[in-house]
Amino acid sequence: MTSDDTDTAPRGGTGTAPGPGGGADLHLELPPHGARRTVLAQALREAVRSGRLAGGTRLPPYRALAADLGLARNAVADAYAELVAEGWFTARQGSGTRVAEGAATAAAPAAPAAPAPAGPRHDLLQGKPDPAAFPRGAWSTSARRALAEAPTEAFGPGDPRGRPELRRALAAYLSRARGVRTGPENIIVCSGFANGLRLLAPLRPRDWAVEEYGLPFHHGILDAAGVHPHPVPVDEDGARTDRIPALARTLLLTPAHQFPTGARLLSARRAEAVEWARGTGGLIVEDDYDGEFRYDRKPVGAVQGLDPGHVAYAGSLSKSLSPAVRLGWLVLPDDLVGQVLTAKGQRESWASALDQLALADFIECGAYDRHIRRMRQRYRTRRDRLAEALASRVPEVRVTGISAGLHAVVDLPPGTEQAALAAARTAGLSLDGLSSYHHPSAPTPAREGLVVGYAAPPQAAFGRAVEALVGVVRGVVRG
Amino acid sequence: MTSDDTDTAPRGGTGTAPGPGGGADLHLELPPHGARRTVLAQALREAVRSGRLAGGTRLPPYRALAADLGLARNAVADAYAELVAEGWFTARQGSGTRVAEGAATAAAPAAPAAPAPAGPRHDLLQGKPDPAAFPRGAWSTSARRALAEAPTEAFGPGDPRGRPELRRALAAYLSRARGVRTGPENIIVCSGFANGLRLLAPLRPRDWAVEEYGLPFHHGILDAAGVHPHPVPVDEDGARTDRIPALARTLLLTPAHQFPTGARLLSARRAEAVEWARGTGGLIVEDDYDGEFRYDRKPVGAVQGLDPGHVAYAGSLSKSLSPAVRLGWLVLPDDLVGQVLTAKGQRESWASALDQLALADFIECGAYDRHIRRMRQRYRTRRDRLAEALASRVPEVRVTGISAGLHAVVDLPPGTEQAALAAARTAGLSLDGLSSYHHPSAPTPAREGLVVGYAAPPQAAFGRAVEALVGVVRGVVRG
Repeated sequence: MTSDDTDTAPRGGTGTAPGPGGGADLHLELPPHGARRTVLAQALREAVRSGRLAGGTRLPPYRALAADLGLARNAVADAYAELVAEGWFTARQGSGTRVAEGAATAAAPAAPAAPAPAGPRHDLLQGKPDPAAFPRGAWSTSARRALAEAPTEAFGPGDPRGRPELRRALAAYLSRARGVRTGPENIIVCSGFANGLRLLAPLRPRDWAVEEYGLPFHHGILDAAGVHPHPVPVDEDGARTDRIPALARTLLLTPAHQFPTGARLLSARRAEAVEWARGTGGLIVEDDYDGEFRYDRKPVGAVQGLDPGHVAYAGSLSKSLSPAVRLGWLVLPDDLVGQVLTAKGQRESWASALDQLALADFIECGAYDRHIRRMRQRYRTRRDRLAEALASRVPEVRVTGISAGLHAVVDLPPGTEQAALAAARTAGLSLDGLSSYHHPSAPTPAREGLVVGYAAPPQAAFGRAVEALVGVVRGVVRG
Repeated sequence: MTSDDTDTAPRGGTGTAPGPGGGADLHLELPPHGARRTVLAQALREAVRSGRLAGGTRLPPYRALAADLGLARNAVADAYAELVAEGWFTARQGSGTRVAEGAATAAAPAAPAAPAPAGPRHDLLQGKPDPAAFPRGAWSTSARRALAEAPTEAFGPGDPRGRPELRRALAAYLSRARGVRTGPENIIVCSGFANGLRLLAPLRPRDWAVEEYGLPFHHGILDAAGVHPHPVPVDEDGARTDRIPALARTLLLTPAHQFPTGARLLSARRAEAVEWARGTGGLIVEDDYDGEFRYDRKPVGAVQGLDPGHVAYAGSLSKSLSPAVRLGWLVLPDDLVGQVLTAKGQRESWASALDQLALADFIECGAYDRHIRRMRQRYRTRRDRLAEALASRVPEVRVTGISAGLHAVVDLPPGTEQAALAAARTAGLSLDGLSSYHHPSAPTPAREGLVVGYAAPPQAAFGRAVEALVGVVRGVVRG
């Protein structure tokens, strides 16, 4: 008896003799139509799922099965490879292909036979850039060049400050494009704004002031760090800097484009915020999440430029390029640099050095600027279409906030937001209400409205998404 | 009066009239030797640092300065670009190049005039693969192909489970190469082992058992999560699984290659650990940090393969490819998958989707296997050279542990480790003592020895590193 004979034979198959290569014979009936590789893979999955092919069973060599079934060898080899890749089979040198132990129970729930339920037809959730606009070619070029030119040490343990190439490129870019005043030594690379906030939160006194409108996710990060966020009122000129709570020593702001209400922070208030920081030893955390995307005129510079010693500036690629590249940056006052580095630890834990090198090249060769310009044009057109459609068809509602960013706020009459959200769901629109971004402990009542992200839908579907939205809004405000 | 005239003229310069392009004239004296771009950049930095060029000062157009100084235009343009990149200057469309506000104070501390102190000549710290061996070409090919073939949604917000392409590739690879039994649905991508441990620690009861030898960094992660690590004795057959503390419900193991003592966990102990987990409802966390690198025979499979329901398997690229690509993976029992995903949150916060896609391709096209084979050969040769040099020149010390991984332990006589470390520092060797990896609350006294990482030194310098180490060890043990 060879060791092959000890294999469990497939139950319920027609053949029981070992195949020519040592694997067990296998009876399969394939439907006559469909690509052979696909139908074979499906039949094999079904055989495992049903228990007909038990865990540990050795499959016949693909040549033998191809001959049995009258299929091309490649089709069988490909189907085997597919099931190995999916974890149904295992392939080991010298022991052939076998059914994975536990594959029937482990893999079955992950391969549902039923089709996935249909998602919303139009994704109008805020905060997502157009995934189809990712500049694949230009990024590839930068990544390849950066990888070829990188010094050897770049492939060793990472510096928690981030790659020097990227910090140099960011210092020049942020200075030029966002009016940030910094050298590379005050920049710390992170994996996005949330990562930056997680690093900063434990370092600052426990009372923070936050805008009364903001991302609950960010307030949750402060909560988790034991920080108490106190809401500051927001109006059409941004945060009310005359209303910063007396005990706060850190102020989280979105000056370029208040999130999500869309206000630009008034110049006088910028100055007032900086005066507050100077007078109290306070720190402004500037979340410049979409500062590059201003459509009516040139973007206003960062508050950081007014006083680099009192502002921690934070930016990321999540809106400007893609959230799939987990890269962001903090520009910090001198005294915070060391503290954040201590919090990060001795090695970089998150941000890929390869992506950092690619981004440095991408910025320096001008591709980042070109991408921003292209997206600015595209998003501006989309915003204009949305605003014009609403203005002409439902003139009683307003799109508020400056012409900027990846989202617009459609103000609604009091008492209509929930109905609008329900109607939107019915219409296949995925979006949020304005009130869900209002801090629960803010004294002012929440405005009602819709936060409409206009960047993510495919270009070809955008017109239909706007039509559907106009229909929802019109139905709700006209009762 | 034009707006140019309101610019601050450089103080202490010889020229005061505006230059031909609107920028202020600038007096600079350049040393006669050295690349023009470099000496010009140095002189400009010095002018800012000294305050001679105040913040906001507009620089003369590079053509004008080139003419003044008799330099090539390119040299001046390059020097300007360099200072912009470093944050000393700002360049804005339509307003020319200016000295950055605050550049003198902000940038000065980061540009130390003194040369950096010389580091150790040979890096023998454990845990670092050879950075010069990073397969730049093959990775570039995979990254380019993956980027070209990725579906559009890959550039949207990331799934905290990780890219499906990578989880499929890992399921097949880990099954084939490490005997891990899993489908893609039990894999969660993370940014490395530490990230995985940070996710798992809060989910498991507060008492963990850890091997008495291990990375203090990992024990620190458990401490930070409020978990108490109880040390389990380790001998030449790995962890003493008969000595798991009664209150522990989680056991952190390095079965393939005990870290850092180098034992392989005995088969009977593997079975005993799994029995313990089954009997107590416990979980084994298997840190397979260098499981692919076994040199004396075929790597032994993962403990996870014995019972996927009671083992959380963790691996990463940090040893097998590079710590610069921040990617790792957890293979989890069903009930832990949801818990870890809840801990991760709704979106991927850390792991780059681009790197994930590249790695999936890199594994599937066979490049990862080729890289592992190549490295296995290289590291084996290095380990053999180290062991042979010590055996022939200092036969009274032993290299202990199995022939595997990126480091070796050189056992030393009691009372000599500190002296050996001091001698190593003097000889320009960077390495750690074995006792620094011994858990401080373990009852058994720490062995003495050196933990020698042999993977990182450049190929050409490895012989000298071994010579220096042999000299250190010989000097210490022969007094």
